[in-house]
Amino acid sequence: MDILLIGMAGGSGSGKSTITRRLAELFPDAVTVVNHDDYYKAQDDLSMEERAKTNYDHPDAFDTDLLIYHLKQLKLGRKIQCPQYDYTVHNRSDAVREIAPSPVIIVDGILIFENAELRNLFDIRFYVDTDADERVLRRIRRDTMERGRSLESVINQYLTTVKPMHDAFVEPSKKYANIIIPEGGNNVVALEIIENKIRQHLAQSQD
Amino acid sequence: MDILLIGMAGGSGSGKSTITRRLAELFPDAVTVVNHDDYYKAQDDLSMEERAKTNYDHPDAFDTDLLIYHLKQLKLGRKIQCPQYDYTVHNRSDAVREIAPSPVIIVDGILIFENAELRNLFDIRFYVDTDADERVLRRIRRDTMERGRSLESVINQYLTTVKPMHDAFVEPSKKYANIIIPEGGNNVVALEIIENKIRQHLAQSQD
Repeated sequence: MDILLIGMAGGSGSGKSTITRRLAELFPDAVTVVNHDDYYKAQDDLSMEERAKTNYDHPDAFDTDLLIYHLKQLKLGRKIQCPQYDYTVHNRSDAVREIAPSPVIIVDGILIFENAELRNLFDIRFYVDTDADERVLRRIRRDTMERGRSLESVINQYLTTVKPMHDAFVEPSKKYANIIIPEGGNNVVALEIIENKIRQHLAQSQD
Repeated sequence: MDILLIGMAGGSGSGKSTITRRLAELFPDAVTVVNHDDYYKAQDDLSMEERAKTNYDHPDAFDTDLLIYHLKQLKLGRKIQCPQYDYTVHNRSDAVREIAPSPVIIVDGILIFENAELRNLFDIRFYVDTDADERVLRRIRRDTMERGRSLESVINQYLTTVKPMHDAFVEPSKKYANIIIPEGGNNVVALEIIENKIRQHLAQSQD
């Protein structure tokens, strides 16, 4: 199988997951989504207190080598056992999600272009670029309304880790993108162009 | 005829004309290129000395209303008489280029997203985004080697009009792009994605 491997990067709150989800909905049988977040490192050896202190916006928080290995396995036509992360205990859960190779695989994550080996695996690298003020507002809305967190804790986390890590690792990785999508989730013109590219890949694969 | 109207903007030296030319070469029968530069205002009423002082990087240097009128005519299926600019005399020449409607029209220019009426005509707005240092180097190479100008005059023009106008009008218009293309001319992944979009438009038009 000829697999089109797409990287969908961008800052927290940029809308990259919205655009990824819409593409997955458009091609339910052809597109598989893999989240870098599911590859947060196992933290069995740390206490709950130590785990809560982990900087989840730093590249070191991820087991990126495992993600790279898994993507190579998928490219070879092999199934993978994708880890699942349990945010309630800040640790990898016992569950895994079996993922079979599919014609299109979209990898979603803020830091997927930061690692050279990972970014070079992608056939197309998209970066969803949304102004920082809009991103922080989306994050506040999501974390206070959907995740029940206090406004103060969201702001504190944003200023202490999210923003510094964005500036240090996420924003500089934008230069590796092939295509930059402004205002991700609501950019219907960009969505349609990616949709076209996927459609063309699927048509070619069937020849 | 269902015309796909594409705007290709970006700073001077960004590579937007390279990508536009490659698309035109790929679809010689379907793609027509219209340059905003050809709509520089006629300057018959000015002396040569005054003409040389015109700020050609400011929106006021263009007869954008005429370009808008012409694009609307093309959309209505009518031919236009596109003006031609004679750089040797800093004035519109007597020649015109007759342009007939074609399935895809690409408008190339640094300031085509600055004017609201013009930018709203486009079905897709691309902005070719290249670092300022690379842009200035391309401009130096082009103007000294192809246009026989002195290095000092190129640098002087860059610092006095090109850069200030870029910062004031071109860069801010990037926010109106649907898709941003880093490193224009050599970005083969982006080129292929636009190519796909054009191919899909042509296939749909034939249905």
